[in-house]
Amino acid sequence: MGKNVEIYDCTLRDGAQAEGISFSVQDKLRIAQALDDIGVAFIEGGNPCASQADMEFFRRAKSLKLKNAVVSAFGSTRRKGVSCEDDVGLAALLAAETRVCSIFGKSWDLHVENVLGASLSENLLMIERSVSYLKGQGRTVVYDAEHFFDGYFADEDYAIQTIRAAARGGADVIALCDTNGGAFPDQIGSIVARVASAHPDIKLGIHAHNDGELAVANTCAAAFAGCVHIQGTFTGFGERCGNVSLASVIANLQLKRGYICIPEDKLCLLAGTARLVADVANDSIHSRTPYIGRSAFAHKAGMHIDAMSKSSRSYEHIPPEAVGNSRRKLTSGFAGRSAIISLINRIAPDVLRDSDDTSRVLKKLKELSAEGYEFESADASIDIIIRKALGVHIPRFTVLSFKAFTEKYPKDSRITAGVMIKVDVGGKEELAAAEGEGPVHALDKALRKALKVFYPCLSSVRLTDFKVRVLDGESATAAAVRVLVESTDGKSSWTTVGVSRDIIEASLLALVDAIDYKLIMS
Amino acid sequence: MGKNVEIYDCTLRDGAQAEGISFSVQDKLRIAQALDDIGVAFIEGGNPCASQADMEFFRRAKSLKLKNAVVSAFGSTRRKGVSCEDDVGLAALLAAETRVCSIFGKSWDLHVENVLGASLSENLLMIERSVSYLKGQGRTVVYDAEHFFDGYFADEDYAIQTIRAAARGGADVIALCDTNGGAFPDQIGSIVARVASAHPDIKLGIHAHNDGELAVANTCAAAFAGCVHIQGTFTGFGERCGNVSLASVIANLQLKRGYICIPEDKLCLLAGTARLVADVANDSIHSRTPYIGRSAFAHKAGMHIDAMSKSSRSYEHIPPEAVGNSRRKLTSGFAGRSAIISLINRIAPDVLRDSDDTSRVLKKLKELSAEGYEFESADASIDIIIRKALGVHIPRFTVLSFKAFTEKYPKDSRITAGVMIKVDVGGKEELAAAEGEGPVHALDKALRKALKVFYPCLSSVRLTDFKVRVLDGESATAAAVRVLVESTDGKSSWTTVGVSRDIIEASLLALVDAIDYKLIMS
Repeated sequence: MGKNVEIYDCTLRDGAQAEGISFSVQDKLRIAQALDDIGVAFIEGGNPCASQADMEFFRRAKSLKLKNAVVSAFGSTRRKGVSCEDDVGLAALLAAETRVCSIFGKSWDLHVENVLGASLSENLLMIERSVSYLKGQGRTVVYDAEHFFDGYFADEDYAIQTIRAAARGGADVIALCDTNGGAFPDQIGSIVARVASAHPDIKLGIHAHNDGELAVANTCAAAFAGCVHIQGTFTGFGERCGNVSLASVIANLQLKRGYICIPEDKLCLLAGTARLVADVANDSIHSRTPYIGRSAFAHKAGMHIDAMSKSSRSYEHIPPEAVGNSRRKLTSGFAGRSAIISLINRIAPDVLRDSDDTSRVLKKLKELSAEGYEFESADASIDIIIRKALGVHIPRFTVLSFKAFTEKYPKDSRITAGVMIKVDVGGKEELAAAEGEGPVHALDKALRKALKVFYPCLSSVRLTDFKVRVLDGESATAAAVRVLVESTDGKSSWTTVGVSRDIIEASLLALVDAIDYKLIMS
Repeated sequence: MGKNVEIYDCTLRDGAQAEGISFSVQDKLRIAQALDDIGVAFIEGGNPCASQADMEFFRRAKSLKLKNAVVSAFGSTRRKGVSCEDDVGLAALLAAETRVCSIFGKSWDLHVENVLGASLSENLLMIERSVSYLKGQGRTVVYDAEHFFDGYFADEDYAIQTIRAAARGGADVIALCDTNGGAFPDQIGSIVARVASAHPDIKLGIHAHNDGELAVANTCAAAFAGCVHIQGTFTGFGERCGNVSLASVIANLQLKRGYICIPEDKLCLLAGTARLVADVANDSIHSRTPYIGRSAFAHKAGMHIDAMSKSSRSYEHIPPEAVGNSRRKLTSGFAGRSAIISLINRIAPDVLRDSDDTSRVLKKLKELSAEGYEFESADASIDIIIRKALGVHIPRFTVLSFKAFTEKYPKDSRITAGVMIKVDVGGKEELAAAEGEGPVHALDKALRKALKVFYPCLSSVRLTDFKVRVLDGESATAAAVRVLVESTDGKSSWTTVGVSRDIIEASLLALVDAIDYKLIMS
């Protein structure tokens, strides 16, 4: 019998406060869908008072068909000297029309007096009234006790009074926050245990930051001591050093300590979901990141590789497949036969797991991975690669040549970008040219212009997303570039990928796959 | 009175087992010097039996003038069925002529039987004899009990017998290893406490890996329970998910728990030393890395920045200067006067917070933000924008025209990218051309080629990072693109930004700022 804890993901709110991360509404919707797929209980979507875009997310999130998660809107207790009814923050929370609202309030006397400029008793009222106001409007309320542990160190009695105020207001969960991320697991464990035993009526949560590189340990210690609600961001994005990484917490607690955080059959989605979140955020997962990183199960020392061949437990704390990652003996990193056979069988149902065909596909994917390809989200490119490796791909067109230029003339502030491209379809050549906003846009227009002559169905195809990721940033502008392109024909959508040291070529490779896939499916 | 622990750095040995890391002898010497400067007690230099280069390092390390650290050579217990005198590994250790030798041996029955193929009693003899042999040769011996905790879980009694064997052999320190990195701090803490109280004659150490993202917590728990010797790698490099990061351990224990790990006046070298180690390793420190990362003390949320101006303890667990890092207030279009005035005053100390000058700068930053600029990390671009808005920017060059092309000819699989660019410096024109790996690389080369004619100091400038972010991916290839460029002249580094619908133009804008900033600072 596992101990159940609920996972509350803040990627879309706290995660967006990380340096270099900013999400479009579309990005947020994609991440929310992925978080629901893996089975988290709560998705904190944003702060509707601080951002119009977040309000728009809440509007559009209503049409997401979520199976596991509920969406939560984040804000704060009402301002000092304002009634709840007149508080713009609380009004925005209600306008977001989510089932759950999370509000943070102050537990540290330093913050109450120096930051809010409120009296200690006034702060208690602000907490209680804000919670009970939202409860009165039918919301489930998560109360975040900001700086709870720092507050507890400074004035234990007052910190406890703040969470009692939230409990009086009717809070459904009270999350104790290590906002500055400086506490230790022995401290968190003993404080949570004391609070839990003195206040058994309160459902406790934990919200840890990673400033001491202790967030995962702190979160686990809190769970061991009685917290049943765990906040964090899936891949550890967040202000400063980040929030706790939920991927690590879920794997640690569920694989090793008998907890149930997400449905058992979803654990194998951990690494893939993390990669998707990072891709959408245009960030990367550091290769040494526990459980989900590319090197997490990579063996380099010869002695280790040798021992691994005798027993896989030799140098692995868990089997990598358990979290959807894979073992690498520092060759290349695509998942094995089991992962790929289902994709092959969608195209060729009779191919067997241990056949030469499967080996050929795996070999090709490994080669491409080594070049910097990543197939996590590029479903259509994988389909085409499998077809080619199986020898069932029918070439429908060839790009014979192209010329892309960008120029700026003296005394002219405008930049012109254009492309000339020549394609061959069944022995017939077609030359087309187009200008665009930059060379990639022009390339896309010119390529479809040339091919539409032969394939009118391409008229319905348009690109909906375009992402560029520089691989190995250290070699700077000479580094390889990975381009991800998302296309739609109005009915379905698909993603393709291209990698090259030249961004124009990488884009062309992804665009060619995108069109090829449409023609295959037509 | 602080509790003293000794720091044993394995960057040059275990760190070199990280994916993507390899050190030359020269690299190792530089890192060893830096580790000595910051005051670690031991530097593990490598495995003289496995690598000729490591043997060369030990030879050359003798001429390093180390003030704090001693160098240690790493190897293993003698092989099964070979006498110590005839064992090539032990011979190599002695040939390294270091004062300290570290050898690992097996504590986990699974490894003894399945990997070594030895009997349990034979393994005990191998441990005891190898240690006593090295002791007999006058060496200080650190014995690494590999997989000690996994061994303890599997067969507590046998695991204890292995360390007793090392103690009988005369080991000066016995380091308990969580080799697979899967243990929890509550487990490590209670096992170390039991071992320490049952075996008070043994000087205990800890060697933790980070596979559960718990290495820092595990190492601290071991120290609290009685380990006085701490192994790790300075920045966390290592096999799979890495070894414990000594930077985090040192900062946690010394700043917060009353331990003395390195001399008190060296703590402020932590971030700089970490950066040097990463630079030499040609790796980068992830920006969110606790204590030493670029974002570790970076504040983005407006609410946080506002609170920080009232009390710096608001959102910081320690003052960043304590570890040689610095606070950064990320500037976004929404940041107010308080965030921007300190930047203005670095250029023009007399400008006031509420002056027209400040308003003009803010207005310009808001306009640029609306276009998609993001300044949080682009320190150099912000500097230039402020100078321009204040009217104190001196134009040093103008790009008059350029032409960038990428082409692929029929029947030719190669792609060619080239750029022709014309600049004006004080009325003199210069035309230059360059080819590159893609148009941006060519643009960078051509621009600096043209400008070096006038400004030879640009020879030292090179790009170290290049990032592309597609803004509003929904309009796909016609979307605006933000390019971030990080440059260095070998002494300092700076970041610039450019935004345009054309990726070539966005890159050009960032490159122009990068060069302009170097010229301003020269």
